[in-house]
Amino acid sequence: MSHFDSIVKGGTVFTACDSYVADIGIKDGRISAIGINLGDDAKETVNAFDRYVIPGGIDPHTHFDMPFMGTRSSDDFETGGIAAACGGTTTIVDFANQWRDGMSLGETVEEWHKKASEKCPVDYGFHVVIAHPSDTVMREIPEMIRNGYTSFKLFMTYEGLMATDDVLLESLIKASEGGGLVAVHAENFHIINYYTKRFMAEGKVEPQYHALSRPPIAEGEATGRAIKLARLAGAPIYMVHVSCRESVEEIDRARSEGITAMGETCPQYLLLSYENYLEPGFAGAKYVMSPPLRDKESQPFLWKALKEDVLQVVSTDHCPFFMKQKEMDKESFVKIPNGAPGVELRMALLYTYGVCAGKFDMNRYVQLTSTNAAKIFGIYPKKGAIAVGSDADLVILDPNEEKTIERSMLHENVDYTPYEGFAVKGYPEAVMLRGKILAKGGAFVGSKGGGSFIKRNSPIFI
Amino acid sequence: MSHFDSIVKGGTVFTACDSYVADIGIKDGRISAIGINLGDDAKETVNAFDRYVIPGGIDPHTHFDMPFMGTRSSDDFETGGIAAACGGTTTIVDFANQWRDGMSLGETVEEWHKKASEKCPVDYGFHVVIAHPSDTVMREIPEMIRNGYTSFKLFMTYEGLMATDDVLLESLIKASEGGGLVAVHAENFHIINYYTKRFMAEGKVEPQYHALSRPPIAEGEATGRAIKLARLAGAPIYMVHVSCRESVEEIDRARSEGITAMGETCPQYLLLSYENYLEPGFAGAKYVMSPPLRDKESQPFLWKALKEDVLQVVSTDHCPFFMKQKEMDKESFVKIPNGAPGVELRMALLYTYGVCAGKFDMNRYVQLTSTNAAKIFGIYPKKGAIAVGSDADLVILDPNEEKTIERSMLHENVDYTPYEGFAVKGYPEAVMLRGKILAKGGAFVGSKGGGSFIKRNSPIFI
Amino acid sequence: MSHFDSIVKGGTVFTACDSYVADIGIKDGRISAIGINLGDDAKETVNAFDRYVIPGGIDPHTHFDMPFMGTRSSDDFETGGIAAACGGTTTIVDFANQWRDGMSLGETVEEWHKKASEKCPVDYGFHVVIAHPSDTVMREIPEMIRNGYTSFKLFMTYEGLMATDDVLLESLIKASEGGGLVAVHAENFHIINYYTKRFMAEGKVEPQYHALSRPPIAEGEATGRAIKLARLAGAPIYMVHVSCRESVEEIDRARSEGITAMGETCPQYLLLSYENYLEPGFAGAKYVMSPPLRDKESQPFLWKALKEDVLQVVSTDHCPFFMKQKEMDKESFVKIPNGAPGVELRMALLYTYGVCAGKFDMNRYVQLTSTNAAKIFGIYPKKGAIAVGSDADLVILDPNEEKTIERSMLHENVDYTPYEGFAVKGYPEAVMLRGKILAKGGAFVGSKGGGSFIKRNSPIFI
Amino acid sequence: MSHFDSIVKGGTVFTACDSYVADIGIKDGRISAIGINLGDDAKETVNAFDRYVIPGGIDPHTHFDMPFMGTRSSDDFETGGIAAACGGTTTIVDFANQWRDGMSLGETVEEWHKKASEKCPVDYGFHVVIAHPSDTVMREIPEMIRNGYTSFKLFMTYEGLMATDDVLLESLIKASEGGGLVAVHAENFHIINYYTKRFMAEGKVEPQYHALSRPPIAEGEATGRAIKLARLAGAPIYMVHVSCRESVEEIDRARSEGITAMGETCPQYLLLSYENYLEPGFAGAKYVMSPPLRDKESQPFLWKALKEDVLQVVSTDHCPFFMKQKEMDKESFVKIPNGAPGVELRMALLYTYGVCAGKFDMNRYVQLTSTNAAKIFGIYPKKGAIAVGSDADLVILDPNEEKTIERSMLHENVDYTPYEGFAVKGYPEAVMLRGKILAKGGAFVGSKGGGSFIKRNSPIFI
Repeated sequence: MSHFDSIVKGGTVFTACDSYVADIGIKDGRISAIGINLGDDAKETVNAFDRYVIPGGIDPHTHFDMPFMGTRSSDDFETGGIAAACGGTTTIVDFANQWRDGMSLGETVEEWHKKASEKCPVDYGFHVVIAHPSDTVMREIPEMIRNGYTSFKLFMTYEGLMATDDVLLESLIKASEGGGLVAVHAENFHIINYYTKRFMAEGKVEPQYHALSRPPIAEGEATGRAIKLARLAGAPIYMVHVSCRESVEEIDRARSEGITAMGETCPQYLLLSYENYLEPGFAGAKYVMSPPLRDKESQPFLWKALKEDVLQVVSTDHCPFFMKQKEMDKESFVKIPNGAPGVELRMALLYTYGVCAGKFDMNRYVQLTSTNAAKIFGIYPKKGAIAVGSDADLVILDPNEEKTIERSMLHENVDYTPYEGFAVKGYPEAVMLRGKILAKGGAFVGSKGGGSFIKRNSPIFI
Repeated sequence: MSHFDSIVKGGTVFTACDSYVADIGIKDGRISAIGINLGDDAKETVNAFDRYVIPGGIDPHTHFDMPFMGTRSSDDFETGGIAAACGGTTTIVDFANQWRDGMSLGETVEEWHKKASEKCPVDYGFHVVIAHPSDTVMREIPEMIRNGYTSFKLFMTYEGLMATDDVLLESLIKASEGGGLVAVHAENFHIINYYTKRFMAEGKVEPQYHALSRPPIAEGEATGRAIKLARLAGAPIYMVHVSCRESVEEIDRARSEGITAMGETCPQYLLLSYENYLEPGFAGAKYVMSPPLRDKESQPFLWKALKEDVLQVVSTDHCPFFMKQKEMDKESFVKIPNGAPGVELRMALLYTYGVCAGKFDMNRYVQLTSTNAAKIFGIYPKKGAIAVGSDADLVILDPNEEKTIERSMLHENVDYTPYEGFAVKGYPEAVMLRGKILAKGGAFVGSKGGGSFIKRNSPIFI
Repeated sequence: MSHFDSIVKGGTVFTACDSYVADIGIKDGRISAIGINLGDDAKETVNAFDRYVIPGGIDPHTHFDMPFMGTRSSDDFETGGIAAACGGTTTIVDFANQWRDGMSLGETVEEWHKKASEKCPVDYGFHVVIAHPSDTVMREIPEMIRNGYTSFKLFMTYEGLMATDDVLLESLIKASEGGGLVAVHAENFHIINYYTKRFMAEGKVEPQYHALSRPPIAEGEATGRAIKLARLAGAPIYMVHVSCRESVEEIDRARSEGITAMGETCPQYLLLSYENYLEPGFAGAKYVMSPPLRDKESQPFLWKALKEDVLQVVSTDHCPFFMKQKEMDKESFVKIPNGAPGVELRMALLYTYGVCAGKFDMNRYVQLTSTNAAKIFGIYPKKGAIAVGSDADLVILDPNEEKTIERSMLHENVDYTPYEGFAVKGYPEAVMLRGKILAKGGAFVGSKGGGSFIKRNSPIFI
Repeated sequence: MSHFDSIVKGGTVFTACDSYVADIGIKDGRISAIGINLGDDAKETVNAFDRYVIPGGIDPHTHFDMPFMGTRSSDDFETGGIAAACGGTTTIVDFANQWRDGMSLGETVEEWHKKASEKCPVDYGFHVVIAHPSDTVMREIPEMIRNGYTSFKLFMTYEGLMATDDVLLESLIKASEGGGLVAVHAENFHIINYYTKRFMAEGKVEPQYHALSRPPIAEGEATGRAIKLARLAGAPIYMVHVSCRESVEEIDRARSEGITAMGETCPQYLLLSYENYLEPGFAGAKYVMSPPLRDKESQPFLWKALKEDVLQVVSTDHCPFFMKQKEMDKESFVKIPNGAPGVELRMALLYTYGVCAGKFDMNRYVQLTSTNAAKIFGIYPKKGAIAVGSDADLVILDPNEEKTIERSMLHENVDYTPYEGFAVKGYPEAVMLRGKILAKGGAFVGSKGGGSFIKRNSPIFI
C-alpha cells in the first residue's frame, strides 16, 4: 500500500495567510501531509515545480439549470460544473429557487438535488431562495439549516420573486436564530419600476436602458435598507453581487459600526462597464444582468473594497443565455433574460487583473476566491484551505503563462463570453477535487456526477 | 391722520441675526419704521419696555379639522387658530389631505379653504397631501405651485395614505421642476407592519406597543431612503417631525454631501419620552402619535441638531383628540387615533427649554420658530422677519415671567395637554397679526376668520 | 434742529439675515431709524435708490506700518486706512507686534497707538502678538483683555517670532480664562525648515520655492495641532489666513466635535494660485506670502468652507511691500519680504466672485465681510450690523456696475496689485463711518486721523 | 539517521489564518513536514495531544540592559531573554540606542551586539534609535538597512533623545528610500513640559502626576503629526505603544485614507489603568512609564483596534527597574525611571484576556503576537509562521489550564510584576526555538547565548 494516493510535488503553496514551497501528500481525498520532501511513495505524482498551488476555487453564486423570465439558464449542472472545474473552481453553491407559490423549501431543494445529483462534476451546496413566503415557509427555516442549507436568499426586486421589508426582516430574524445567514439581492424595485415605465413610454427600448433604469442609488439604497433591517434583527447579512460605490459605502459604514455585514462582487463589475451596452445592434444584450454594469469610475471602489475587506468574496452570478434567448423580444429591454456566463473565467481573471495588476497579493486572492466563501457559507476548513485534514481540492497554475480568451476554449454552454479577447495569466494547469484530477491543461478529465452535495454548517463571520 | 397706526415702544427686538432696543412703527399692517424714538403719533401704543419683541411664530405643521382613523381631530380652524394665536403663533400651514381616492388636488384645497376661510383667526397656508396619486394628480402639481401651494406631503407609512417609492420619486421630480418642495413623513411601513402583527398576535395591545412597533430604525431607514430618492431626483426635501438620532444622522450626512435636505422636530420629541407610555391605565394613549416618543437618550441629539442647523424648524404636528376618541378601542393600540395637541405651547416651551436652558440663543430661537419656516415655505420676508416692509406679526414677551402649565389656561379644544405641570417662562404677553392685537395676557382678543390665506412662493433653501 | 443728521434713502438693505428696501436715518453717528419713508428732515440726504446698502466692512487682519524681515510694510495707518475706506472697509483690526524681546504687551500696544492715533481714517483695534513670551508677559494677558485688547496672536512658524506648543497652550489657557481669544498662524516650522534648507542647498532659489517649501500639510498639521491644544485648554481658537483643504478639514472636524474653532481665509487664496509664482523674471515675488498661494484645486474647498460656515470670515492679511523691497536679494526666496496688498479690494472681489458667481447670497456676504468679524472680535453690535443703535458704518454700492482693476485706481501705497486686470462688480459708491462720508466714487473724502480706537469686548463665538 | 530531529505530535495547530490537528516534523531547526500522522522516526517526540501549537511569540519592543534616566534597565539579554523564552516569546527586537552624541549608528549596534551575543537565549534583532542626528548619521541609514537593521526609532519627547519634526521627516524619507521603516514614540514634548513645570511648581510630585502631565491629547496629537510627516515623506510609519483612543483614531483615519500607518499596543494599556497610580505610598511608581496608563474607558478602543486591524501588534515595551531604582527621588515624579516589566506575561495575558474573553479568535491572536511583527519587521516567513520551511519556533499550551500570576514564578530580573494576582490561562507548557526546547513547564531549559542575531529584510506592510 502506498503511503499517499498522490503527491503534488514542489509547488509554491499559497494559503489565506502563508506561502512556502512544499510537497502535498494526499490520502483518501484529503491532505494528509505537507512537507519539504515527502518522497515518491504514491500512486500518482503531480509535478508542480515552478507552479503555484492554491485551494480549489469556490463560487458561491451560480444559477445552473434555472427557470427564469420564461426561459432557462443554458448551463445545467453538467456543463456548468465542467466549466467551473476547467476554470479552477471545485465547489459551487447554487440557488435552489422556490419558483412557484405553494412549493415548500424542502420540495425546492429536492428539485435542485435532482438537477445536480447525477450530473455535477464539482462539489456543490444550495442556498435556498425564499420567493413565496408564508407562515409555513418561515417555519421551515430552522429545519433547512439543520439539514445543511445554512443560507437563504431574498430578492428586493423582480416582481413575483421579491420580498417586502417585513418578509426580509422576519427571514433575517428566523435565519439568525437558527444559525443561518441571509443573502440579499439589493435593488429598489420602485425606483426601477419608475424608470422602466418612463423609458418604455418614451420608446427607449434598447439594452442600455436596462442599465439606465437601474441607477446605482437604487442598489445603494436597498443595500443600506437591508443592512438596517439586519441591524434591527440583530442578524448577520451578506450582500450579493455588489456593483457600485454606493453599496460599498453602506457596507463599509455598517462594518465600522460593528454590524456583521459581508458582501461579494463579481468579475463583470470589476472589468466591464456601461460602455458595453452600446455595442452595435443588439449585442448590448449580452451584458443585460442585474444589477447592470456600471460606469468605469465605479471599478476602483470595488477593487479597493476587495483589498480593504469591505467585500470578502468574488463570485460570478453565472447565469448564461444564448443570444437567441437574449433576443426573444428586441422591442423591450424588459424582456431580455438577465444574466451572463462567468464561472469558468473567474479564477484567471481575478489572478490577472487582481494579483498581477498589483491590486492585492496572493494570500488575499486565496481569501477572495476560496477561503472566505468557505467560512461564510459553512464549509471551512473542509474547503477553502490547504491544510492537513482539508479536502484535497487544489489548483495548480503557471503564474507566468499567458492566454487570450476565446469563446472556443471555454466549456460553458453558451455562444459568447463577455471576456472575448481578454488577456489572462495563470490559467489553471491542473485542478483536483478531493485528490482526483478534474481538469488538465484546460480539458475536463473528471466524471459527470463526480461532485458531492455538501451539507453546510453555520457561517463563520468575517 | 396719524403717522403710524400703532407703535410698539421700547422693546428689545430679536431677529434671526440681530438684537437691539427700538420702537416699531406699524402702518397698514406692515412694519413701516424701526427707530430709537419714533414718538407718539399713533392711534395705539403698545408698551414693550423690558420686554422681548420677536417675529410672530410660524407653525408649519398643524392638522385642524382633519378626518383621520375614523374620527376627526378635535380642533377646527377656529379653536386651533385661537390656541395658536394665544400661544404666539400668527401663521400656520395646515395639511390639505387628499383623503379619498378620485379627489383632485384642486378639490382638496377647495375643501380645506372652506374649513378655514370664515374661521381661522391667524394667517394660514396649505400643504397638499398626495395620498391618492394618479397620472392626473401628478399633472396637477405645477398648477398647484403656481396657485400658491408650493409644498406637498407624502407619507411613507399609513395604509391607504402612503406612497411607494416610485410615487415619492415622481413627486419629488415634478415638484422640484415646478419650483415646489416635498415634505415627507418617513417611517418604514413594513417594519411597523411586522411588529404590529407580532405584538397583536402576542396579545401586547397596550399603548406602549404603539411605540415598540415603530422602532427608531424604521424612521431612520425611511429618512435615508427618502433623501436618496431626492438625490436621485435632484430635488430638495423636507423631513417632518424628526424624532430620533437615526434620522438626524441621515440628514446630517446628506447636508454635508451638499444635498438640500431640511427638517423639523417638535416639542414632544424634545421634552417627552417613551416613559410617558407607561402612565397608569390607558393614559399612555395621550402620547400615541407617529413617530412615537423615543427614549430620553435621543433628546440631546435633537437639541444638538437644532443648534447645528441639521434641523431648521420646530413645528408641532398639532393633531388633538379627546380622551374618549383615544379610548375608542382599548383592545388594540392600532386603533388609538394618532396625534396630540401642541400648537399653543410651542413658543413658550422652546423659549424655556431651549433659550433659557442654554441650548441656543435668541436669534436661533427666532430662526427655529419663525424665520426658517417662512423661508422654506415661501412666505419670507412677508412673514418671519422684523424688518421694514414685513407684516407686523409680533410677539411681546416678558423674558422672566414664569408660569406652570395647566390644561385650564389653554384654548386647544381637547381635554388634556401632554405638558401639564411643565414650568415655562416667557409666555406671550401680547401677540399681533398684521398690526392688530390678537391675544393679550393669554386671552384671545382677535376675530374669528380674521386670518388670511397666504399664497406661497417657491422655497428658499437653507 | 433736524430730526436726523443724515438719511440714506431708498436703498435695498442687506443684513446678516434680512433684506428690505428702506430709508436709514442717522443721528449722532448711529442708526436711529429704519423706515419706509423717513422724510427729508435731515442735514444731508444720500440717495441709495437701486443701490445695495450693507454694513461697513471689517478687516480683522491688516499689517500697517509693520517692521518685518528687515524692512517695513509700505502702508502706514494713513495710506492703509484710506485704501480700506475707499474699498468699503470702515474698521480694521491690526496686529500690535511685540517685535523685540523685553517689550511688555502694554508697551507694544502703546507703540501701535502712536502709529495709528493721528493717522487712521477708519476705526481700528489691535490684536496683541505674543512673540517674546515670559512669565511677566503671560501675566499681562488678563489686563490687556480688560483694556479692550481681547485677542492675541501666536505664530507657529517664523524664527524669532514663533511660539512652541507649551507657550501656545499657556496662552490659550490664560486668554480663555480672561475672556479673550487666541488667533494662530499655523504652519509647521520644522517642515518648512527642512525644505528650505534642502532647496537652498540644491540652488533652488526662485520665488516658487517659497511655496514648495511650505506644503499644505505643513499648514494642515499645524492647524490640527493648534486646535488640539485649544481642546486641551478648553479654549476657543481662531485660525488666521486658512489657505488649503488640509486646514479646512481640521477645522471642520473640530467644529463637528463641538470645539470652538473658527477661521478666516483671504481673497488671495480664493482667487490666485501657485501658477502666479511662475510669472517671468522675479515677478513671482509679488505673491510671496505665508502661507503661500496653493494649487487651483484648493480653491473650491475654501469657497465651500465659507458657504458652510467652516470658515466665518474673509480678511486680507494686507501687508504690502514695494517691488524694490521684494527684490532686495534675488539669490534667495528666503529673503523676500512676506506679504501682499489687499485691503482695498476685499469687498469688491468677494462680492464679484462670491455673490455674483453664486457661491453664497448677500446675507452670507455681509456675515463674511462684517458681522462675523464683529462678533468674534468683540465689537458687535456696535459694528457689523445695520440695526437701530449700531454705528452708522455703511457701504452703498451699485450691484451691476462693472470695473476692471488697475493699480492706478487704488490708494494702497505700493506699486502693484495682485489683482491687476480682474473684473469686479459692485465697487463701493459711497462709504460712511459713523454717519460721515469717508469715500465717494472711489475717492477719499474723509479726514486723516478720523478713525477711533475701539476697545473691544469678549468674543461672541460662532 | 532519523527522518526528523523531532516531532510535535497531535496538537491543534493555529496559524494566522488556519487551524487543524497535525503532527509537525522538524529537521535542522526548521519545519520540514506537517501531517496527519508523521510516524515516530525522530530523535525526540513532543506530545501535544489536546494542546494548542502556535508560532513562537515575537516581541518587537524590549529594552534589555538599557542606560536610561541615570540608571539601567534591570534585565540584561540573559535574564530578559530567559523571561521571554519562559513566557513563549522566541524572538525579540530590542532597541540599540544611540545614547551619546557622536556615536555612529554602526557603533551603536556594535555596542548592542556585545550586550546580546553571548547572553541572549532567544533570537534577536535590533531597531536603531536615532537620538543624535547629524548629516553623517543620516547618511548611515541605507547601509544600516543593507546590514539587516531595517527599522529605526525616533522619539518625539524626552529631552536629549527627541527629534524635531525636520529630523523625523528626513528620517522617514531616508529610511523609506532605503527600504526601511521608521517607528515613532509619539508624545508632544511641549505639552508634557507645560504640565510638568506647572505640577512641580504646585508641589504635585506624586507618581500620578506623571500621568496627568502626559494627557492623551499629547499622544494623539503627536501620533497625528508623525503620520502627516509620513504622508509628506511618502513613507510607511509604525507607532509604538499606542495607549489611547486619540491615537487609535489618528491611525484609523490614516489607514482608511490609504496611508501605510501601523501600530502596536501593549498589555499594560489593555489591562491596567490610571487607578494603579493611586496605590498607597510610592507604589504608583511601578506603573510610571511613557505613555502613562490611561483611564479604563480607553481600553475598549484598544481592544477594538486590535480586532479591526487598526493596530497590528502587541508588544511589551519591557523596561524593568527595581523598586529601589524607582524610588531614587520621591520628591519628583520626573525622576522616576520610566518603564515596567512585561516580556514574560505577554502571551498568556493576551490569550486570557483576548481570546478567552472573546475579543478575537486564535488566528488573530497568532497575528498579533507573532505573524504581524514578523512581517512588519522583515523576518517573515522565517519567523511568525507554522509552515513548511519556517523556523521551528513553537509554543505548546494547554488551552484550559489556569494559573494565578505571582512574582515568584517569573524570571524577569525585577522585584515586582504589574500583573500580580492576575488569573491567566494557556500558559506555555513547552517552547521551542529552531526545534530545540527552550522552556518546559515554566522553567528555562535552553542555553545562555543560544539565540542568534537575525539580519532583517524590508518590511511587508499590512
